Amino acid sequence: MSFELKKYHEPDFESEPLCSAPNAVLHPAPLDGVAPEGYHASSIYPEYFKIDGEWLFARDSRMDCVPVYENGRIHVREFRHLHEGDLVVCGRSENGEEGVLVHENGFLERQRIEQKFAFRQGRSRETAYSKEYDDFYELLNYERDHGRIVWVMGPAFAFNSYSRDAFSRIVANGYAHAVLAGNALATHDLEGAYLHTALGQDIETQESVEGGHYNHLDTINRVRYHGSISNFIKEEGIDNGIMYTLEKYRVPYVLAGSIRDDGPLPPVYSDVYEAQNAMRAQVRCATTVICMATALHTIATGNMTPTYRVLEDGTVRQVYFYCVDIDEFTVNKLADRGSLSSRGIVTNVQDFIGLVAKGLNLYDKHARR
Amino acid sequence: MSFELKKYHEPDFESEPLCSAPNAVLHPAPLDGVAPEGYHASSIYPEYFKIDGEWLFARDSRMDCVPVYENGRIHVREFRHLHEGDLVVCGRSENGEEGVLVHENGFLERQRIEQKFAFRQGRSRETAYSKEYDDFYELLNYERDHGRIVWVMGPAFAFNSYSRDAFSRIVANGYAHAVLAGNALATHDLEGAYLHTALGQDIETQESVEGGHYNHLDTINRVRYHGSISNFIKEEGIDNGIMYTLEKYRVPYVLAGSIRDDGPLPPVYSDVYEAQNAMRAQVRCATTVICMATALHTIATGNMTPTYRVLEDGTVRQVYFYCVDIDEFTVNKLADRGSLSSRGIVTNVQDFIGLVAKGLNLYDKHARR
Amino acid sequence: MSFELKKYHEPDFESEPLCSAPNAVLHPAPLDGVAPEGYHASSIYPEYFKIDGEWLFARDSRMDCVPVYENGRIHVREFRHLHEGDLVVCGRSENGEEGVLVHENGFLERQRIEQKFAFRQGRSRETAYSKEYDDFYELLNYERDHGRIVWVMGPAFAFNSYSRDAFSRIVANGYAHAVLAGNALATHDLEGAYLHTALGQDIETQESVEGGHYNHLDTINRVRYHGSISNFIKEEGIDNGIMYTLEKYRVPYVLAGSIRDDGPLPPVYSDVYEAQNAMRAQVRCATTVICMATALHTIATGNMTPTYRVLEDGTVRQVYFYCVDIDEFTVNKLADRGSLSSRGIVTNVQDFIGLVAKGLNLYDKHARR
Amino acid sequence: MSFELKKYHEPDFESEPLCSAPNAVLHPAPLDGVAPEGYHASSIYPEYFKIDGEWLFARDSRMDCVPVYENGRIHVREFRHLHEGDLVVCGRSENGEEGVLVHENGFLERQRIEQKFAFRQGRSRETAYSKEYDDFYELLNYERDHGRIVWVMGPAFAFNSYSRDAFSRIVANGYAHAVLAGNALATHDLEGAYLHTALGQDIETQESVEGGHYNHLDTINRVRYHGSISNFIKEEGIDNGIMYTLEKYRVPYVLAGSIRDDGPLPPVYSDVYEAQNAMRAQVRCATTVICMATALHTIATGNMTPTYRVLEDGTVRQVYFYCVDIDEFTVNKLADRGSLSSRGIVTNVQDFIGLVAKGLNLYDKHARR
Repeated sequence: MSFELKKYHEPDFESEPLCSAPNAVLHPAPLDGVAPEGYHASSIYPEYFKIDGEWLFARDSRMDCVPVYENGRIHVREFRHLHEGDLVVCGRSENGEEGVLVHENGFLERQRIEQKFAFRQGRSRETAYSKEYDDFYELLNYERDHGRIVWVMGPAFAFNSYSRDAFSRIVANGYAHAVLAGNALATHDLEGAYLHTALGQDIETQESVEGGHYNHLDTINRVRYHGSISNFIKEEGIDNGIMYTLEKYRVPYVLAGSIRDDGPLPPVYSDVYEAQNAMRAQVRCATTVICMATALHTIATGNMTPTYRVLEDGTVRQVYFYCVDIDEFTVNKLADRGSLSSRGIVTNVQDFIGLVAKGLNLYDKHARR
Repeated sequence: MSFELKKYHEPDFESEPLCSAPNAVLHPAPLDGVAPEGYHASSIYPEYFKIDGEWLFARDSRMDCVPVYENGRIHVREFRHLHEGDLVVCGRSENGEEGVLVHENGFLERQRIEQKFAFRQGRSRETAYSKEYDDFYELLNYERDHGRIVWVMGPAFAFNSYSRDAFSRIVANGYAHAVLAGNALATHDLEGAYLHTALGQDIETQESVEGGHYNHLDTINRVRYHGSISNFIKEEGIDNGIMYTLEKYRVPYVLAGSIRDDGPLPPVYSDVYEAQNAMRAQVRCATTVICMATALHTIATGNMTPTYRVLEDGTVRQVYFYCVDIDEFTVNKLADRGSLSSRGIVTNVQDFIGLVAKGLNLYDKHARR
Repeated sequence: MSFELKKYHEPDFESEPLCSAPNAVLHPAPLDGVAPEGYHASSIYPEYFKIDGEWLFARDSRMDCVPVYENGRIHVREFRHLHEGDLVVCGRSENGEEGVLVHENGFLERQRIEQKFAFRQGRSRETAYSKEYDDFYELLNYERDHGRIVWVMGPAFAFNSYSRDAFSRIVANGYAHAVLAGNALATHDLEGAYLHTALGQDIETQESVEGGHYNHLDTINRVRYHGSISNFIKEEGIDNGIMYTLEKYRVPYVLAGSIRDDGPLPPVYSDVYEAQNAMRAQVRCATTVICMATALHTIATGNMTPTYRVLEDGTVRQVYFYCVDIDEFTVNKLADRGSLSSRGIVTNVQDFIGLVAKGLNLYDKHARR
Repeated sequence: MSFELKKYHEPDFESEPLCSAPNAVLHPAPLDGVAPEGYHASSIYPEYFKIDGEWLFARDSRMDCVPVYENGRIHVREFRHLHEGDLVVCGRSENGEEGVLVHENGFLERQRIEQKFAFRQGRSRETAYSKEYDDFYELLNYERDHGRIVWVMGPAFAFNSYSRDAFSRIVANGYAHAVLAGNALATHDLEGAYLHTALGQDIETQESVEGGHYNHLDTINRVRYHGSISNFIKEEGIDNGIMYTLEKYRVPYVLAGSIRDDGPLPPVYSDVYEAQNAMRAQVRCATTVICMATALHTIATGNMTPTYRVLEDGTVRQVYFYCVDIDEFTVNKLADRGSLSSRGIVTNVQDFIGLVAKGLNLYDKHARR
């Protein structure tokens, strides 16, 4: 059984209260970066706004931002990107009565709408994940060719030669269209390629090497010397690892800085809101997002990922969102988004990525791209 | 590189303080189940006791019990098994001065003894486990033919068709010589075979079935009707699962009762100290013990597993002890045993057992026994 | 504002489908310890069974057991307590149509019934507990005089002089009517009183004392010598701690054995199903149950605690059930009971019990009883 | 017994290998932001560098940075702050042989140095903390008058009226000299003051208020309207909470941005390395640092906090570092710093801060400053 997209059901604009709804109220932003009182805040769902008698669809949305009407379209914009005078949709009811409609159930079969709470179940170490894995492999195979897969990664992958290799195969075989991570993932992955350690432990044998506590600093210092990760890879003849594979296959990546960082490595964003912009630029065209082993980046990405995507041909499709973490707290925090398309898996991400690479049969194949 | 046993180094009884040590003091137990004041308590290490001028080796030991001298041998006995008048070794120094020697470093290369603290490292979700897995597969292949592998299991395996199947292959291929578990593992595994659910969820699709909350009770009731798990399997035509495979290949199992139990299933021990006896009977000849996803059974088994085993030909060899759990608290609790041979792996055990079955190449083989 | 019991609303037996419901079906148990096919299993809620045209109330219930009709009354009985021929209620619908009614909403105000899902919320480290604590103190003050408070405790309390003292004050001031625990709590508490350590660490300064790893075994051995905890306390002049205070104020306690135990201490139940019986005997008249820092005993107690109690005067009242644990997994496992009266608090239980003792103003009072 | 500082023992520069050590090697930084090969990286301990025959002390240090010799002094500088040509100390041995001395045991009594590993113990939910709390209250009372206390806080405090109030009392009574936090703490605390909710739940009763999911956005938008937290507090008449109390008593705070943020609030640092600078400016004069309920800020602060501080009169004293978190993973991650002065407490921080405010007797006092 292979993967199939669920059909999107548009709202019925001919029925009440939609057909006799007033136009949505628009008020200008009073200052740069400030919304007018009573602004509407966007959700993760498809939303429609009645302007001049017509229901406009927010094609490109994210949670907790404001809809701005501009040049005949709705733009969902972060508060910090508002300009004085921007026309912001106001109104906080969600059923259309004020010209604002949040359409939660567009991907649900009609008969399932009333049961939908049954699908929301907590995820824990005791949840059975075997079907989840099978569905996931099917989804990835579909998305490789028809979608766009964004991986969000904590540093744990870089500590282990096995998981570095597994993820490199995933990239080399076309299953990654972008990667979002931080300074630490890149640092430890490059340390592995440059000095064969992660935080001073051999990535094969896990034995501590002498003076190994210098290795991550030496790696960072050397990358800074070369001016960029890409130069470092070329000049130092790096030929393995996650960053190497991303560069080789020209897969875009965003490294967002944090107050924990050493260094940082040259292409890391020091401004977190510019980092958010760069992340959203990748998420904006993602159709599947997989967050692994990082509370910080997972929540940040969850905040900016809607449940749907409008394809170039106008099709509205679901966005699949996975959160994989050994910590039930993180997994359940994301599940509170309450979306049908958000799924949690509680496990060690090293094992997860190894299972995925095996499940996709990547150990007996050559790189595809 | 294939697995090799480490050589055991006997203490040097010719050197001081051993060569001029006095005989160990023996005092009779004052009452049934009570040790004399000053009794010596056993550890997880090999121990020697000087009796009548000769150093006797406790061939069969466990932690926190007392050495009894009887018929020319040392027997390490639980307090509750002491009889009034049993001759108990007394003395609490461990270096031989009182005729009692705890020999901690028998399996360490001489030159490594002074560095041994470096090997004790915390285990967490961020530990790199790739070499651990490779070593583990080699160990299992060695032990299948030359040792005895005891698996200690919580109920999580039974919730998932994939992990049930993986563990069944491990049993069918000779990698399990005994299983220690509780009422819940057996209940949910048999529920899976009988009604295709675990706690009412389909074990393939994980969907809740109607009235499924009765399924574990119906299974228990039916096993009780047939009088035993073995009769139930025969009479109801059960042909899959963990309990079925254990019965088929005549692998012994001990099911220990707890206050949480429904039922219980007929062969479950209601007396926890009789259950301890039955568990120790299996552990007594184990050479590798793997505890997965159960704090209760893991700690119980850890308490009764020494670091060594005396083979029939007199060879003293290491016992390997693994603790696999998603909860670092449990893993680290065991690691406090401080033994070289105890290893922790922090992950979801469903993924673990799947990886192990794949690592042992059990998906393209027929059952071996 | 002081605590008030919620009023219980009986089902309306005059309305449909109750008024025209048939009698419940009764079938005899086919064997000792085995229910007939189609048996009804009890829940945590009040249940009614129509027998000979009359709705009989199960005054004394617990989850996952079977209703037996005997001498004109309904007895909710564990499977293992069934006798061949016992008349068991059969039927699995719960709305009365088969003469079996599960009455979930007896304590809810009418207007709140349809909103009740809003009250079910996950509990985590980020939940705000200040009101919970205030309500809890009010509840305890009410229950001390009008109810029966059962505490279920893991061993953590015994490791710390502060929490031992706090709980002793709670007992001395009448806030504990029974305690359910295991061998470890009693062992470490008595070790504290006898040798001023817990697992070999001084309970005031937390420093390890020399030879301290013998202390818990010495304590157990001494209790076994005296034949019981109560004799040990008298003969050894113990004058502080949890077990001492329970004995002094004649508060009943049940110590259930487990496969992890050393010893055991003489009054510990070795048979877990006899332990269940003894625990249920205490829970049967409990009006508030507080489980702290023990997954094993908490789940066991949760299984046998209904949401209601019938007082001597016939009043039906709620039973309050708290689960306090640092591990969200345990807390949420209990919350799946889905009962209005079950509450989880995620914290370190040493801090919890200290706050409770302060909140009840027990540091400036003398013992009350 | 009241708190006393431990005496600092200078290295014995007259003994070998120090007295005949060569001068440390100095090499110029090859580029801005890049250290020369072989640079020395600083630790959390006091370090000395032999320059021109004299041992210079790094008075102001932090981990994983480089010592720069400038104007006759040693400055410990982040890589990103290096300028081309800066004279960087090179050499990786730590015992003085290369003119670089890491002085780990300056605060240890001589006789305890060889035993020091015994003091390093894991911290878990089962650790007994009663003495820890007593010591902590004494420390805080000492530091209020003679030191500088920096608190590092996650958002959990703001969700609960009780913990907001407790921390406000701590500030009002002089126990906080600086606070390091993020956008979320400030947002939810101000939401509490402005709209009496946190994430839409009433901070007293924890009930969800209608439309409450807008409250944090409305608060942020209003703060942005007023241009700063300080203006918002004045213009909107805010009179309670953590941010209000910090402003009232002019306690400096640093709010560091992260990619998770909504808004952000005006004074939040968008550049994480500027945030690091601002944080280090506070930590530079801290004598006690308490990190609570935030992995991100705790690790960031741990990275920049040394074990010692040089007071104005030249005294070298210990810096006390606490990590309080419900997650053992975070607590133990910090404990790996291996410092005598780093302590972990595993609990819910709401309970922790309530206990601390009670332990300092802040409920029957007026504000002190």
